[in-house]
Amino acid sequence: MSKITHLTQKLEKDNIFAAVLSDPVSINYLTGYLSDPHERHMYLFVFADKSPLLFLPALDVARAEATLDFPVVGYQDSENPWEKIKAVLPATDWPQVAVEFDNLNVTKFKGLQTVFSGEFVNLTPTLQQMRLIKSADEIEKMLVAGDFADKAVQVGFDNISLDVTETDIIAQIEFEMKKQGINKMSFETMVLTGNNAANPHGIPGTNKIENNSLLLFDLGVETLGYTSDMTRTVAVGKPDQFKQDIYNLCLEAQLTALDFIKPGVTAAEVDAAARNVIEKAGYGEYFNHRLGHGLGMDVHEFPSIMAGNDMEIQEGMCFSVEPGIYIPGKVGVRIEDCGYVTKNGFEVFTQTPKELLYFEG
Amino acid sequence: MSKITHLTQKLEKDNIFAAVLSDPVSINYLTGYLSDPHERHMYLFVFADKSPLLFLPALDVARAEATLDFPVVGYQDSENPWEKIKAVLPATDWPQVAVEFDNLNVTKFKGLQTVFSGEFVNLTPTLQQMRLIKSADEIEKMLVAGDFADKAVQVGFDNISLDVTETDIIAQIEFEMKKQGINKMSFETMVLTGNNAANPHGIPGTNKIENNSLLLFDLGVETLGYTSDMTRTVAVGKPDQFKQDIYNLCLEAQLTALDFIKPGVTAAEVDAAARNVIEKAGYGEYFNHRLGHGLGMDVHEFPSIMAGNDMEIQEGMCFSVEPGIYIPGKVGVRIEDCGYVTKNGFEVFTQTPKELLYFEG
Repeated sequence: MSKITHLTQKLEKDNIFAAVLSDPVSINYLTGYLSDPHERHMYLFVFADKSPLLFLPALDVARAEATLDFPVVGYQDSENPWEKIKAVLPATDWPQVAVEFDNLNVTKFKGLQTVFSGEFVNLTPTLQQMRLIKSADEIEKMLVAGDFADKAVQVGFDNISLDVTETDIIAQIEFEMKKQGINKMSFETMVLTGNNAANPHGIPGTNKIENNSLLLFDLGVETLGYTSDMTRTVAVGKPDQFKQDIYNLCLEAQLTALDFIKPGVTAAEVDAAARNVIEKAGYGEYFNHRLGHGLGMDVHEFPSIMAGNDMEIQEGMCFSVEPGIYIPGKVGVRIEDCGYVTKNGFEVFTQTPKELLYFEG
Repeated sequence: MSKITHLTQKLEKDNIFAAVLSDPVSINYLTGYLSDPHERHMYLFVFADKSPLLFLPALDVARAEATLDFPVVGYQDSENPWEKIKAVLPATDWPQVAVEFDNLNVTKFKGLQTVFSGEFVNLTPTLQQMRLIKSADEIEKMLVAGDFADKAVQVGFDNISLDVTETDIIAQIEFEMKKQGINKMSFETMVLTGNNAANPHGIPGTNKIENNSLLLFDLGVETLGYTSDMTRTVAVGKPDQFKQDIYNLCLEAQLTALDFIKPGVTAAEVDAAARNVIEKAGYGEYFNHRLGHGLGMDVHEFPSIMAGNDMEIQEGMCFSVEPGIYIPGKVGVRIEDCGYVTKNGFEVFTQTPKELLYFEG
């Protein structure tokens, strides 16, 4: 059964017979066609009893037609997209239409309201549910993406030197990945030295790598339509005992959570497993973000591994486990692996060692 | 006068005393603080008669506080952001609240509707108008970004060889840019060989550079908070006469439009100036996108240079002029410069030559 059929069957249970997809990743997930229309319009119209239709910028029609086996309609920049959509759709008088609340902006939402007269309901949870449990095929692709992340962080390790900057190392990592055929990193690669790593959203710059300090790498790649994401923090020279202790505390928190994950526990309990370790040591206030996020085609998707999320962990879910301890002006550590839930536990996508690695300062 | 004051004064004319900014670029434009909260929440609340307030993820509070001279409130991932916003705002009972329709997704829009009881009006046009006319200081920064684009495309030219792939050249370009301190390209760098360039949204891959063919580069950088964007198409080996003719036709269209631009003409007329050249030669159907887009802090912003847009061109507007001719299976050409409107004409940000350049095949 195609994913589109799967979607319409799910919707039909709620008596919803029409859906409009607007997120390029959702459209890729359902159809295998990936394109970002940026501020232009791209919508996949899906109906219970009619053929789907992809509406998109005229300049993308040729590529879409080569990929898809259902109708594709393009519009010119100078055309009114809403009038054109109304003209080409087989029907617009559905009592309810499902749209992606988490993706659609208000302008486009109001535009669709001129096309459809029915009530708009939220399609986001249905798609999140569909994407939540990964198939064996998806996990295979995510293992490949994880393997590239391991290679990328190794390139970073190979380029550690007191003579270079954070940005220099990023340039080397991304260069090597591109040479290996990776078109896109999952997000902007982070290499943060010293106090810059003590900010969980630090921005890499032309800071020279500090000696006797910790150095943080956070990176991932996109390949085969799937993402990876990992963080390693390593020692340059001889960081003092306090920095080493904070590192080992963070590692203990991560290993505790990894060991805890299995079907049946809740997302909140996974978060707590790691957080308790850090809180007991007195550093809870410095772990100021959730433990993890789902990933797949997007580097951030469902589920969210955090306090308050009582969602039960199930086999096939994929998410990150990334405790961090950020003490401003002193030290920043984060250790992150993503993985997938198995029948009895959790297997990670990335294999780079986690005992504190030392590099020459 | 600060940009925030400027915004509130504009809104007060329409009796609107409260606004909520959600686009990170808008927030950067108004405050100088740049951060992307991804799927988390970040809102700048602006009031006519009260201090502004930035609401954002807890993990970004320290950096925001170091930049801003007004209150910053963070929320934890496990907190309900809407309840927290309601609790910390000085007032929520405004008759009208302006929000960014082009940026805000439906989920966040519905969340804000639980905070504010008033009517929601669209803030996007006001911000587009504010950002439309660039100051001398902004144009200075865009000249710097343009200069880096010239350097980047030169790196591309230096790496043309039949032994390498599109992705290899992209890797070299981005590596050199990162080495020069550029953290981010404006968009994914495009290097497209042969028929791949005949698709206006072609995707670079491991295609070896073709001989006796055209090779297209589309790239830009972000620096000092501003973007650049340029396209050059060059010859590798000896492309046949037809390819050369199409190139020269595209160039004639671009030069005609560049020469035509001055305050007082309309965006539609600028588009037509280039389009007429290509249409008269019989290739109008192969120029299937607008002539150009505004740029500034975003690589795509107002104005849109296209048929149907009767907006008058004014001094200080910045936009691209990028005619393209894409004949599937045969040839693809695009030539693009961005520039700014002067008192009497148009000056471009990028200086790389435009007569057809030949590289050894």
